[in-house]
Amino acid sequence: MTRIPFETMQQVIAEAFVKAGMNAQDADTCARTHTESSCDGIYSHGLNRVARFVDYLGKGWVDPNARPSLVKKLGVIEIYDGNRGPGILNAFQATDRAMAIAAEQGVGIVSLRNTTHWMRGGAYGWYAANQGYVAISWTNTESCMPAWGGKDTKLGNNPFVMAVPRKKGHIVLDMAMSQYSYGKLQVTRLKGEQLPFPGGFDQDGKLTSEPGPIEQSMRILPTGYWKGSGLSILLDTLAAVLSEGLATNDIDQIKQGSCTGCSQVFIVIDPRQLGGEEFTDKVADGVADYVNSSTPAENGKEVLYPGQSTARIRQDHRANGIVVDDGVWAEVLALAGRKS
Amino acid sequence: MTRIPFETMQQVIAEAFVKAGMNAQDADTCARTHTESSCDGIYSHGLNRVARFVDYLGKGWVDPNARPSLVKKLGVIEIYDGNRGPGILNAFQATDRAMAIAAEQGVGIVSLRNTTHWMRGGAYGWYAANQGYVAISWTNTESCMPAWGGKDTKLGNNPFVMAVPRKKGHIVLDMAMSQYSYGKLQVTRLKGEQLPFPGGFDQDGKLTSEPGPIEQSMRILPTGYWKGSGLSILLDTLAAVLSEGLATNDIDQIKQGSCTGCSQVFIVIDPRQLGGEEFTDKVADGVADYVNSSTPAENGKEVLYPGQSTARIRQDHRANGIVVDDGVWAEVLALAGRKS
Repeated sequence: MTRIPFETMQQVIAEAFVKAGMNAQDADTCARTHTESSCDGIYSHGLNRVARFVDYLGKGWVDPNARPSLVKKLGVIEIYDGNRGPGILNAFQATDRAMAIAAEQGVGIVSLRNTTHWMRGGAYGWYAANQGYVAISWTNTESCMPAWGGKDTKLGNNPFVMAVPRKKGHIVLDMAMSQYSYGKLQVTRLKGEQLPFPGGFDQDGKLTSEPGPIEQSMRILPTGYWKGSGLSILLDTLAAVLSEGLATNDIDQIKQGSCTGCSQVFIVIDPRQLGGEEFTDKVADGVADYVNSSTPAENGKEVLYPGQSTARIRQDHRANGIVVDDGVWAEVLALAGRKS
Repeated sequence: MTRIPFETMQQVIAEAFVKAGMNAQDADTCARTHTESSCDGIYSHGLNRVARFVDYLGKGWVDPNARPSLVKKLGVIEIYDGNRGPGILNAFQATDRAMAIAAEQGVGIVSLRNTTHWMRGGAYGWYAANQGYVAISWTNTESCMPAWGGKDTKLGNNPFVMAVPRKKGHIVLDMAMSQYSYGKLQVTRLKGEQLPFPGGFDQDGKLTSEPGPIEQSMRILPTGYWKGSGLSILLDTLAAVLSEGLATNDIDQIKQGSCTGCSQVFIVIDPRQLGGEEFTDKVADGVADYVNSSTPAENGKEVLYPGQSTARIRQDHRANGIVVDDGVWAEVLALAGRKS
C-alpha cells in the first residue's frame, strides 16, 4: 500500500489536466477536488477517475473552456446552462452562487442543465457546510439500473447530497440510488468475495450477493428495492423540471460517457439567519450524540453519523498520505508526463 | 370485504371528530383527509388511524383549537410553531402558505415546529401537485428503528415526500425510512406470512423475513441498510434546524404518542414560472413513459412510477366504494355515535 502526500497528488493530477487542455487555475481546482475525494476515501471519484476525465476532454465530451451561462432568474432561483463545461467547475460555481443568494436572502436555489459529471457529489455538501451553509443537492445521470419490477436499465443512480454544518464535524450524506455501484461490484468480484447484502438479480431473476452475475445482468438493485427506485425517479424528474434540462431518458440518447448533458439542483440555506450557529450546533450535536450513543450490534464497533467516518479517513490521509492503488497512480503519473 | 362510499366515510369520521371536540369545519377537513388516504389505499393513515387520533384528542396530546403561529420570516422562508394543533390542519396551512409564497416568488419554504402527526405525508404532495406545484416535504418522528450498526432505536421513520404535477397523473413519492412499517409487520404476522424481503434483525442479530421476531427485537431495517439510516439522520437534523424545532432525540422525551412535538419542512416551487406547464408535462411524461416501457421482471406485470398505482386504487374506490376492515369500520361508527 503506497501513500502519497496530498500536495503531491494534487500537483500531479493538475499537470495531467493541463496536458489535457485545461488552463492552470481550472486544472488546479479540479485536481484539488479529485485529491480531496481520494483523501476522504472516495477513491472511485478521486484519483481513480482522473484518466476517464482526461479521456472525456480528449474526446471533446467535456469542454474545458465552457462555463455556466444564466438562463433564467426568478427571485432566489437561478437556472444556468452548464454548456458541457467541466462538471466540477460548474458545480462549484452553482454552489457558490446559491450560497451568495442565501447570504442575502436566506435561501438560494441554483439549477444547472447541460452540465457534465460532477464527480463526487459530497464535495459540494462539504464545501457549503465548511462555509456554514445547509445544502441539499442532487444530479441525475444516464440510466444504469432497472426500475423496480423491471429488467432493463431505465433509472439513473442520481446521487443525493444533504449537508448540515457542525463545529465538531459536519453531518454530510452522499448517497446514490443503487445499493452498490458497479465499481463496488467489480472490486468485490476481483477479490473473490461476496457483497455484504444482495446487490442485484442474476440472469434468472434471483437476488444474489455474487457480484459477477449482477454485472452480467445489469440488474443492480435500487437501494431499499422499490423505495430507491421511486426516489431515483423523483430526483430525475425534479432535476430536469427545475433546470429546464434533460431527464435520464433524454440523457441516454447522448451517448458521450457518464452524466454528459445531465441536470443538477443546488439548494442552499443559511442557518445563521434562522436559529443561528449555536442553535444549529445544538441540534446537530444532539442528533450526532444520539446516534453515537447507540448500543453497537457488534461488540467493539461504533455507530457513526454520515460524514463521521469520512472525517476520520481524511485526518489519517492528511497526516500520513493518501492511500493509492499503485497501478492507478502510475497511470496518472504517465498522464502528467512524469516517470513512475 | 365491505366497501363504503367516500361521502359516507367522510361524514362518519367527521362526526367522530366532532364528538371528540373539534369544530365542524376542522372535523370535516380532517375527515376528508383520512378518507382520501383510505381511498388511495393508505388504510394505515386513513380510516384505521381515526381511533388513535380521537384518543390523542381525549388525552390532550393534540389541541383541536390550536393553530400555527408565525415565529420568523426570512424572505421566502417562514417558520411557524404548530402549537400542537391537529397535524393535518397544520400541514395543510403550511402547504397553503408555501404555495402562496411560491405563487409570488417562485419558491416558498415553510417549516413547522411543535406540530403533531400529519398522518399521511403524501396528502400534502398530492394537494400541492393538484394545484400545479412541485413539493418536497418531510417530517421527523420519535425513534422507531436503530441507526445502522446499532441495536437500540435511535432514528425516526421520517417520511419524505416529493411531488411533480403532471396532467396524465402526478408523480408522487411518499417514503418512510424503514423498509417496512410496524403495521406491515403486524398484518403480515397475523396472516401467517413472510415479508417479501428481510425486514429487520431477530434477537440473535440475524436478518429475517419473519415479522414476529423483528417486532420483538424492534430492530426494523432502515431502507437500503446504511443508506436509509443516513437519510433518516439528515432529514431529522434538517427538519429541526430549519424549523428551530426538536430533533428525534428530543421528541423521544415527550412521550405523548407518535410525532407529538415533531418538526416538518414544506418546500414548494412553481414550475409554471420556470419552464412552464407544457415543459413540465413533457419532462414528467418522458420519465413516466420511460419507466412504463420497462421490460417486466415477471411476465404480465407492469412497471409503474410512484403515484401510478395510487391513482388506480383511488379511481376504483371512488367508483365502487372504499374497502374497509369491518372491525375498524364498526369502531369508527361507534366513535361517531352510530350503530354498526
